[in-house]
Amino acid sequence: MSKILVFGHQNPDTDAIASSYAWSYLEQTAWGRNTEMVALGAPNEETAFVLDYFGVQTPPIVKSAKAEGASQVILTDHNEFQQSISDIRDVDILAVIDHHRVANFETANPLYMRLEPVGSASSIVFRAFKETRTEIPKEIAGLLLSGLISDTLLLKSPTTHASDPAVAEELAKIAGVNLQEYGLAMLKAGTNLANKSAAELVDIDAKTFELNGNQVRVAQVNTVDINDVLERQSEIEEAIKASQAANNYSDFVLMITDILNSNSEILALGNNTDKVEAAFNFKLEDNHAFLKGAVSRKKQVVPQLTQSFNG
Amino acid sequence: MSKILVFGHQNPDTDAIASSYAWSYLEQTAWGRNTEMVALGAPNEETAFVLDYFGVQTPPIVKSAKAEGASQVILTDHNEFQQSISDIRDVDILAVIDHHRVANFETANPLYMRLEPVGSASSIVFRAFKETRTEIPKEIAGLLLSGLISDTLLLKSPTTHASDPAVAEELAKIAGVNLQEYGLAMLKAGTNLANKSAAELVDIDAKTFELNGNQVRVAQVNTVDINDVLERQSEIEEAIKASQAANNYSDFVLMITDILNSNSEILALGNNTDKVEAAFNFKLEDNHAFLKGAVSRKKQVVPQLTQSFNG
Repeated sequence: MSKILVFGHQNPDTDAIASSYAWSYLEQTAWGRNTEMVALGAPNEETAFVLDYFGVQTPPIVKSAKAEGASQVILTDHNEFQQSISDIRDVDILAVIDHHRVANFETANPLYMRLEPVGSASSIVFRAFKETRTEIPKEIAGLLLSGLISDTLLLKSPTTHASDPAVAEELAKIAGVNLQEYGLAMLKAGTNLANKSAAELVDIDAKTFELNGNQVRVAQVNTVDINDVLERQSEIEEAIKASQAANNYSDFVLMITDILNSNSEILALGNNTDKVEAAFNFKLEDNHAFLKGAVSRKKQVVPQLTQSFNG
Repeated sequence: MSKILVFGHQNPDTDAIASSYAWSYLEQTAWGRNTEMVALGAPNEETAFVLDYFGVQTPPIVKSAKAEGASQVILTDHNEFQQSISDIRDVDILAVIDHHRVANFETANPLYMRLEPVGSASSIVFRAFKETRTEIPKEIAGLLLSGLISDTLLLKSPTTHASDPAVAEELAKIAGVNLQEYGLAMLKAGTNLANKSAAELVDIDAKTFELNGNQVRVAQVNTVDINDVLERQSEIEEAIKASQAANNYSDFVLMITDILNSNSEILALGNNTDKVEAAFNFKLEDNHAFLKGAVSRKKQVVPQLTQSFNG
């Protein structure tokens, strides 16, 4: 029986690593399948904290399924092919567990596909454990909890689903941690930006969107103090300009998100800063402005930019 | 609260009608949503038998969601946009319940999507009733059972999943019917071809596949006696040739499927009958040949044709 690779998206975040690790365990335990969890990139600092905390080894990092001798795969926390393994079009996709929109995805055969509009892919994996009456080991509960905390900024993001708080409570209990204390410690671990270059910082979590013909890059960094990041504004702006020049981004919008108070400072450079100002009804001063209550790129930034650029 | 339309694919078969009818009921009952089940075409004779048997009214037939005042939809038994409602790209897709491959499908937002590689979409809807502990009314059990019987030819098709027979038994019990007796009566109702023109007959259940640059039409009709259909061979061949000329099909393969004995006669016309013969390792005589044990286009005909045409 040849092995089935299970993995989250490229540039993996905690939910990508957690959901794939736990799903692979479920496949083995509930259905006896020969799966292997791998990652499409190195864990970030937040995820490294989580793996260390729960004593889970760093997953093998792969680029191609065929190179691993696998022709069957299972995707978690993504479905779009450009976010997946390099040879995704050449393998058989057996299952997808995800909480994103569907785009640039197709299969040759029927498959198991489970998408729910909830706060994290980990929330869905948790439900599958319950439905199959599979006991959740402590370290897997810890990982799933961390995936949910990471994607929802400790249940504060508007992407949090009504069902997610109860999931977090139950997982925290199994994992043996205090939800608030552990959650904050974990999120803080991801805010250690001191040893990152400015170029790394603006690329930790960045996505490109085509808005009315403009290539708009929207990046996000988490911090416990917005001023810590703004102190590095000049080198960050240099890194942004270099990235714009290299990739032809018309605009670069950086969300500096305060995870303690759930606000963001928006730093914007590019050709359409008037559109950015109109999107959020604020005035940029020295290229930045405060956006109260904003923590979600998906719900509180990209739709507003889309509307403004199309207006 | 504006209404949410729930529907199966164009040219609806019994599984498309049954799964959408039952899912709409579940949405209303389990989650209190304002759904309305509609169909994208008139029920075929088999489905008409089912609706009559269980006292369910023929669903409203619609062409466009916007024309019905709906901007939100739920799809069952399909996902590919060319099989869906005409304005599928202009509406918000809230959910998909399906058992086909995924292709030509995308959404703007996260959604509920539940696909399983099982015998029918009705099998999946049945499981959702169980999970939500929603009581299945007798007529809904009858519809779901019929969807499963139709898609699996009474559990004989190789598309039948290991979990499907138990689903059928439980649904038959709730519906108050004998599985074998009811199943056969229902399938027979769909084999009444006498009042169909030859042109209608070759288009009841037909799909086009592009095989190595050739447009290959593969149609299927169910019967209780292959000879009943072969008696009309000359008018059927005229209808096939007219369809080929009108649509530039290089080849036309008609499966005449004996639902009692689970075999098919293959009638093939076109430019590549040598490829059709090679696919099934038989010799066409007077344009047709017997294919023992074949009842599934998806599993027993299209893959073999694909390999032969590419060989």
